[in-house]
Amino acid sequence: MVTPGDIEAAARRIDGVAVRTPLMPCPWADTEDARLLLKPESLQPTGAFKIRGAYNAVARLTPGARARGIVASSSGNHAQAIAYSAALLGTKAVIVMPDTAAQVKIDATRGYGAEVVLVPKTEREEVPRELAREHGYVLVPPFDHPDVIAGQGTVGREIMADAPDADVVLVPVSGGGLISGTAVAVKAANPDAVVIGVEPELAADAADSFTRGARTAWDPELTYRTIADGLRVQQVGALTWPHIARFVDAFVTVTEDEIRDTMRVLATRARLVAEPSGAVAAAAYLHHRDRLPADARTHVAVVSGGNADPALLAAVLGA
Amino acid sequence: MVTPGDIEAAARRIDGVAVRTPLMPCPWADTEDARLLLKPESLQPTGAFKIRGAYNAVARLTPGARARGIVASSSGNHAQAIAYSAALLGTKAVIVMPDTAAQVKIDATRGYGAEVVLVPKTEREEVPRELAREHGYVLVPPFDHPDVIAGQGTVGREIMADAPDADVVLVPVSGGGLISGTAVAVKAANPDAVVIGVEPELAADAADSFTRGARTAWDPELTYRTIADGLRVQQVGALTWPHIARFVDAFVTVTEDEIRDTMRVLATRARLVAEPSGAVAAAAYLHHRDRLPADARTHVAVVSGGNADPALLAAVLGA
Repeated sequence: MVTPGDIEAAARRIDGVAVRTPLMPCPWADTEDARLLLKPESLQPTGAFKIRGAYNAVARLTPGARARGIVASSSGNHAQAIAYSAALLGTKAVIVMPDTAAQVKIDATRGYGAEVVLVPKTEREEVPRELAREHGYVLVPPFDHPDVIAGQGTVGREIMADAPDADVVLVPVSGGGLISGTAVAVKAANPDAVVIGVEPELAADAADSFTRGARTAWDPELTYRTIADGLRVQQVGALTWPHIARFVDAFVTVTEDEIRDTMRVLATRARLVAEPSGAVAAAAYLHHRDRLPADARTHVAVVSGGNADPALLAAVLGA
Repeated sequence: MVTPGDIEAAARRIDGVAVRTPLMPCPWADTEDARLLLKPESLQPTGAFKIRGAYNAVARLTPGARARGIVASSSGNHAQAIAYSAALLGTKAVIVMPDTAAQVKIDATRGYGAEVVLVPKTEREEVPRELAREHGYVLVPPFDHPDVIAGQGTVGREIMADAPDADVVLVPVSGGGLISGTAVAVKAANPDAVVIGVEPELAADAADSFTRGARTAWDPELTYRTIADGLRVQQVGALTWPHIARFVDAFVTVTEDEIRDTMRVLATRARLVAEPSGAVAAAAYLHHRDRLPADARTHVAVVSGGNADPALLAAVLGA
């Protein structure tokens, strides 16, 4: 299991690379007895929290491994984070992306100097392993790695440093790296703070796993229905799952309409561009207060990423 | 003249009210010899830097003055900042707005609990003075007041704390409060750092004043042509002007197309919703590198506000 000490070390490693994002008050969302704070990870240099875990993992590689290069598989934000981290550290990066990935993410990944290999979504796990075998690249997984989890945990560490009174922390869940690290950091600071995972209803494999008490996979034909393209992973990781089972208190799911509405609200009231995956945690607060602890006052929602398709953003603004 | 000590005191006063905004690296905008950092004041609770000066000014009022209430005149962002600050400090706020103000700004101001009085734009200076006389309200001006300038100066103070190597600081100019305070703070930290004011070509009264060496007014029929509704003030203030004349190094003007293009780039690459006024400083970097010091490496652009009309934002995204 990742420890608070691992997260502390990761925080020192990523200092000056990841943006120290603030917590944003949202007077427009406050009620008499509750307030919302946003953690805008969309402000990171690659537009998502992923830079924290990616940089932490790449920075920990041996000089020999860095000289050979790294390979990663990602629907987008991990890709950009790895490409950016590799460029900063002078390492070659090869990124395997599903051919359904948003064009804006493919372009951005190439823009950071990485080589992009597009594959059918069913081959996104096999191809990177082949490339690693063939070229000696080190495979940096998007979530199921202790260095990645520790890096993402710096989000929780910063939340509790800036809002020690946080009662509820809402975190989007895909493979579980962000919520695993964040939950470790939150519980280390305050064991009474409640950590809630948020997923789209259409890709609720982690919520399903949590209810059953066992890691459960959803078919990609199911998870690919959601517009939240960062949350389409079929199941949480073998390593993230025990962190989730131990440290996460509950799950909330949100609808596609709630995701779109929250993208609009975040753009117009919080002046943040959130991608669909980045809007789910705020959507849980705005649309499902009844499913959050009744006595909670300070709620923090992680806006995990901002790489929205411009046409989608324009569409939700016009709605 | 406002001093670095005044800005230091303002920083302590607004701590915990204004968001400590980070500087955002922009790898997508970097060249081999230059980099851009954004200061996203759009993240403030009311969507613009104005909260800094407004809160500093209201917090410094006597208990008697606070009990009577305050009045302010503003095209939008100062209005919201005063309304929000007054609510936090338990003071009544009456805001006089031009009847051409964006509806989103009128609604937001009312949302913070202020009374809004809409007037023709030619009466926006006289009506607040009448209300102050009639009801004993204290008039808090949007820029031409030492407490307001000192509050806005905390932007410059934070920039130099986070990027002591900043070579160029680009600041939008309307009445001059933001650039006056910012320039004082920047020059106090590093007299060699260059402070550049940015205005729309269509409302370039401050650039005009700077060239002539004397405060010059532009007719509202001219300044109201720009979409940058926060920058339509006819002339800089009697108090801000000597700060500008002494501490600002140069001015750059940008076109309406450049403003729209920069709104699009900020939304898609920096994941920030910027209003037109908030985009001008970044526009100067993206479109007028030739007019900035050739040997400058680190450029900071203040994204001063994010209260964009949703229809305009959707339009620039679709362009």
